[in-house]
Amino acid sequence: MLPGSSIGQRLVLTSFGESHGKSIGAVLDGCPAGLEIDEKEIQKMLDLRKPGQSLISTQRKEGDIVEIISGVFRGHTTGAPITMIIQNSDQKSTDYENLKTKLRPGHSDYPAMVKYNHFNDYRGGGRFSGRLTATHVMGGAIARKLLKVTLGVETNSFTAQIGKIKMKNKFDEKMINSIYKNEVRCPEENTAKKMKDSILDARKKGDSLGGIIESITTNVPVGIGEPIFGSLESDLSKAIFSIPSVKGVEFGSGFQGSEMYGSENNDLYTIKKGKIVTKTNNSGGILGGISNGMPITIRIAFKPASSIAQKQNTVDIKTKKITTLLVKGRHDPCVVPRAPPVVDSLVSLTLADHALLAGAIKPVL
Amino acid sequence: MLPGSSIGQRLVLTSFGESHGKSIGAVLDGCPAGLEIDEKEIQKMLDLRKPGQSLISTQRKEGDIVEIISGVFRGHTTGAPITMIIQNSDQKSTDYENLKTKLRPGHSDYPAMVKYNHFNDYRGGGRFSGRLTATHVMGGAIARKLLKVTLGVETNSFTAQIGKIKMKNKFDEKMINSIYKNEVRCPEENTAKKMKDSILDARKKGDSLGGIIESITTNVPVGIGEPIFGSLESDLSKAIFSIPSVKGVEFGSGFQGSEMYGSENNDLYTIKKGKIVTKTNNSGGILGGISNGMPITIRIAFKPASSIAQKQNTVDIKTKKITTLLVKGRHDPCVVPRAPPVVDSLVSLTLADHALLAGAIKPVL
Amino acid sequence: MLPGSSIGQRLVLTSFGESHGKSIGAVLDGCPAGLEIDEKEIQKMLDLRKPGQSLISTQRKEGDIVEIISGVFRGHTTGAPITMIIQNSDQKSTDYENLKTKLRPGHSDYPAMVKYNHFNDYRGGGRFSGRLTATHVMGGAIARKLLKVTLGVETNSFTAQIGKIKMKNKFDEKMINSIYKNEVRCPEENTAKKMKDSILDARKKGDSLGGIIESITTNVPVGIGEPIFGSLESDLSKAIFSIPSVKGVEFGSGFQGSEMYGSENNDLYTIKKGKIVTKTNNSGGILGGISNGMPITIRIAFKPASSIAQKQNTVDIKTKKITTLLVKGRHDPCVVPRAPPVVDSLVSLTLADHALLAGAIKPVL
Amino acid sequence: MLPGSSIGQRLVLTSFGESHGKSIGAVLDGCPAGLEIDEKEIQKMLDLRKPGQSLISTQRKEGDIVEIISGVFRGHTTGAPITMIIQNSDQKSTDYENLKTKLRPGHSDYPAMVKYNHFNDYRGGGRFSGRLTATHVMGGAIARKLLKVTLGVETNSFTAQIGKIKMKNKFDEKMINSIYKNEVRCPEENTAKKMKDSILDARKKGDSLGGIIESITTNVPVGIGEPIFGSLESDLSKAIFSIPSVKGVEFGSGFQGSEMYGSENNDLYTIKKGKIVTKTNNSGGILGGISNGMPITIRIAFKPASSIAQKQNTVDIKTKKITTLLVKGRHDPCVVPRAPPVVDSLVSLTLADHALLAGAIKPVL
Repeated sequence: MLPGSSIGQRLVLTSFGESHGKSIGAVLDGCPAGLEIDEKEIQKMLDLRKPGQSLISTQRKEGDIVEIISGVFRGHTTGAPITMIIQNSDQKSTDYENLKTKLRPGHSDYPAMVKYNHFNDYRGGGRFSGRLTATHVMGGAIARKLLKVTLGVETNSFTAQIGKIKMKNKFDEKMINSIYKNEVRCPEENTAKKMKDSILDARKKGDSLGGIIESITTNVPVGIGEPIFGSLESDLSKAIFSIPSVKGVEFGSGFQGSEMYGSENNDLYTIKKGKIVTKTNNSGGILGGISNGMPITIRIAFKPASSIAQKQNTVDIKTKKITTLLVKGRHDPCVVPRAPPVVDSLVSLTLADHALLAGAIKPVL
Repeated sequence: MLPGSSIGQRLVLTSFGESHGKSIGAVLDGCPAGLEIDEKEIQKMLDLRKPGQSLISTQRKEGDIVEIISGVFRGHTTGAPITMIIQNSDQKSTDYENLKTKLRPGHSDYPAMVKYNHFNDYRGGGRFSGRLTATHVMGGAIARKLLKVTLGVETNSFTAQIGKIKMKNKFDEKMINSIYKNEVRCPEENTAKKMKDSILDARKKGDSLGGIIESITTNVPVGIGEPIFGSLESDLSKAIFSIPSVKGVEFGSGFQGSEMYGSENNDLYTIKKGKIVTKTNNSGGILGGISNGMPITIRIAFKPASSIAQKQNTVDIKTKKITTLLVKGRHDPCVVPRAPPVVDSLVSLTLADHALLAGAIKPVL
Repeated sequence: MLPGSSIGQRLVLTSFGESHGKSIGAVLDGCPAGLEIDEKEIQKMLDLRKPGQSLISTQRKEGDIVEIISGVFRGHTTGAPITMIIQNSDQKSTDYENLKTKLRPGHSDYPAMVKYNHFNDYRGGGRFSGRLTATHVMGGAIARKLLKVTLGVETNSFTAQIGKIKMKNKFDEKMINSIYKNEVRCPEENTAKKMKDSILDARKKGDSLGGIIESITTNVPVGIGEPIFGSLESDLSKAIFSIPSVKGVEFGSGFQGSEMYGSENNDLYTIKKGKIVTKTNNSGGILGGISNGMPITIRIAFKPASSIAQKQNTVDIKTKKITTLLVKGRHDPCVVPRAPPVVDSLVSLTLADHALLAGAIKPVL
Repeated sequence: MLPGSSIGQRLVLTSFGESHGKSIGAVLDGCPAGLEIDEKEIQKMLDLRKPGQSLISTQRKEGDIVEIISGVFRGHTTGAPITMIIQNSDQKSTDYENLKTKLRPGHSDYPAMVKYNHFNDYRGGGRFSGRLTATHVMGGAIARKLLKVTLGVETNSFTAQIGKIKMKNKFDEKMINSIYKNEVRCPEENTAKKMKDSILDARKKGDSLGGIIESITTNVPVGIGEPIFGSLESDLSKAIFSIPSVKGVEFGSGFQGSEMYGSENNDLYTIKKGKIVTKTNNSGGILGGISNGMPITIRIAFKPASSIAQKQNTVDIKTKKITTLLVKGRHDPCVVPRAPPVVDSLVSLTLADHALLAGAIKPVL
């Protein structure tokens, strides 16, 4: 929908709030009636994203306690829009006053100031802050449950790469339980350790790192997605690119597939346990924009965090003179470890939206 | 919009038609009144996408003659929806009868048959055919002109890689005029030659190749795009992933940027000719989802064409038995060289939509 | 959707064309796959709206022959958008040249010229012509069939009043077969005769008449419609007010109900043949915006046709001077008799859209 | 948008909450940045709708105190979505327990229970309660201000009829200041007195009354609205029919115009103070769906309130037996006097949405 705060068509998430405002929240409209909802389940997913838990993330300490204020009655969804709110608590807005006119490299400051003629709330990035991804998680926790309960569909995302450190093995379903065993959210213990060290090292240098999240969704029924502009790739990428640091999205063999021959990249059909499957999954579970029943696999590139503790050259938008700035505030040296629940959320929201549209999930459970 | 045949919100393209139906067409709604329209200009852009022009593309020979049937009066847009139609002419539908139940690897056949319970028009891929990208070009030619006339914005896309053969130099604006000097649409003459040879070689082997398209848009005003779900990355990727073979999209430094430090990837601001610019452009011209005035740079991964002239193992959906098939019909050994005008179109449509929303283009010229 | 040429969300009709352009057409997207389609059925409904059939309608003679150019394969819908086209044939555009700057009272000329800065196609009202309701009928014929085949839902609209001449009796279902027995489309034979005479009399005087259409939809399942902004009254009125001459819409007891006591207007529940029904139907089958299983009853006020064969005072928009004009061209002295199939169409499109959303009709038949 | 809790396309209002839930609220997305916002102004408009102020409205006493929780920074809109919340306080949910299965005539209970399979929050009508119109007023207060500040557009709605008691004179602009001088919100003092007496009389009898609201919007620029499905009549009626008790909407001469001749109903153009105007305003300021610069006039029929203090026959949905019920709770004997600010809000929201789309209001002030 146009002004940009909503996504989805049959299942619509509207996000509101700013980094340093009173509160942030989400309205999820179109969720089928009759889904059991427990605030604790939403809280659990929010906690996986929460800042302030270790040295590899920002030291801003937010309780991030979700409160459901509409749409749930006696523990079940009613069919009415579900509104969830988090009160902001640990803002330090004064950190931002000296940055009011100095443009932080890599951040939205410059285009936002021009676009809104300086009326935007610049504190902590305001509307553009990564903090807003908590609103995606609130809606996503419900979408994720809806998919699981009705179709057995489950999305699991994890850290596959931090800076230049990559996982050694291909992800397989047995690794699911290992994802959240470490702060980095990489299912390979040894790799996770190296990743953590590299983040701490970057932090020490006043620098930051990026990385890659992989996302696997299993049990997707065949036939979800619409041709052309409603393709799953279109709508999944639209959702995922709403995450502030994401600069690349690929499905299946993605960019690597571009270098292969058709005879290598084509996934040949076969029969397994009476079901039509493909031997390989270079398509990432999507053909012609429609799910083919194989796992949906996505790789997502995160740029290194833009806030670094180094003096940088920049421009003062008022004076139009070159100046230097040192970004204060408390920042993540690497946002990737906090991103898996956000990706899970956006993938789940998109697939639930399409499953409702395709009639695979009924409007009332 | 929901059923998937439309894209855009303020400037809406609706695509219709199938590969072997009577005709294909596009309705473009929301184009400002007063834009000069010459059918020949649209035709020119369509011709760049047209099949049957050389050995590196399909031998299906379509005139692809555009006819405007509404929305233009005395050479100008009227504000009413602009409808454009192309008659299909060179279909050979019989090629597809023996494939009715044998699933072509890499194609949409299987999910489409399941989704539509075999009511879909399977001839030549039907609604899922790459042929439908001609409808994007019809709408895109108008959007591209609108952007150029009103804002001086111009998108130029080109072939940057075919299989493993890559351009040697970084694209710069001086190369624009070289893009269409060869059939491969690569602005480096020598690289283009190698690319062509590799395509002809793949063709000889009955195989196919993929590649990478790069797209550069210049003169975008600062402040186009909406925060979060209306980010330029979200809407550009949604549009681009509607192209059948696309499996990856990245902006600016993209996946490569994930391996960089923040201090390397951040684009520092400076002043150039009195204007605020960045020294590098790792952001690809987009910060916080909003244009920052730098060129918008996109890289797009195309998988190798799925139709290959080799016998492949597959499954017959009726018998649920494993079988073999040899895809007949006339196919592109590599679709990448025909894709630049399609990418130009989808990028232009998305940016024009957002420019109208942001008030940068007025509803009447 | 924004620019105004489309309606519906799950089942979307896009209308294109102008009164004196090459052709007019409709794209219907989101229709379930597997619906049997016969061009003749659509034609039959179009013929009921067609001009030039008697003295009480315009003498413009349009064949109004529908041609389906996409979305139907081997006699069934495929799930792809269905495009239907009518070639315009009997335009007399010269009639309009002298009206280029003189504003026709009651017509859209003045706001259209201002809105589009004179780029609009003014011939015969251009985009604003009642002729465009033929595009609604093309889509509506399919929606009407879809509702009938899947749910047994059927909309029947008829002329209840012309000028001051009203039907004597309340409509009941037995009258359905009498609606199209006369040119006025009033199921009471005697009243129809008087209505016809009054139209011919107005025509003779160079004047025009308005009237009221009533619409009854039976067999609507309970629970169609969404609360608040997706209420059936909201979406039905939005659709119906798209008809150029409509200036009023009421449901059930409507304006008359405003004068009743709650104890009179409330419809009391009872059981009939094991089913919960109401004794009266002052609600018009809609409570809280949702269908309650009773017939949906709508009354629609049409203003008298704006084109009259009398000299009228007006203003020349170029000179800003008062002047006189005599509208030439061939016009309906009363458009009401041609409206029932248009109302049937818009009601059917809206209900089918909502039935799909509510899961009452499946995405594939 | 699909699930029904949002309206508007460029300026989108999302409403959430239920009658007896924790709170109700509104998210207004797309409001231009730079509009001065004072919570007190919103509160003032809410107070005009607030219940519990006199004997002619419900005795439920709600503070209805608005709190802005996002989108406003230093007294101005920022371009981010504006979220406003009201805490519910004076619910008496026990009143509704005995009605859980007995269907209240005239209310949404029956279709809501069927639609949501009894998962809906039935207390006080839940999501279907008239209480939700407070969310429209929160958004509407901002839209109303936006229109006034940017274009001088102003909507004034008033009670024109209660039961059979009608205003004696035609409304003229001098009456604007008299609207809120009495509890009935009728600008004619004597008529207001009679209306109040009739409401008190109905209340004494345990009965209820309906009525008619008229709405006049002045200073609308020429050219707002889109042809066909985006007509002002379409979008205004869609918004207004979202009010629970509304059963009829007409523009200009409306139903009465259906009985007139074209020569009577046509509004002739003339020049007044150098401006093109019409001598009469039977079109209600809208031609071809587009504003013509004359005041937009709407008449809206409200049914008598469904909750009456009389024993009524009904059906128990569980037992499917006929039974009787006496609706307890505190209800309005007539909702019409509380409706003018709601109508003002919905008209303002719709016109502001269209003014933004037409470029008459800029995205940043």
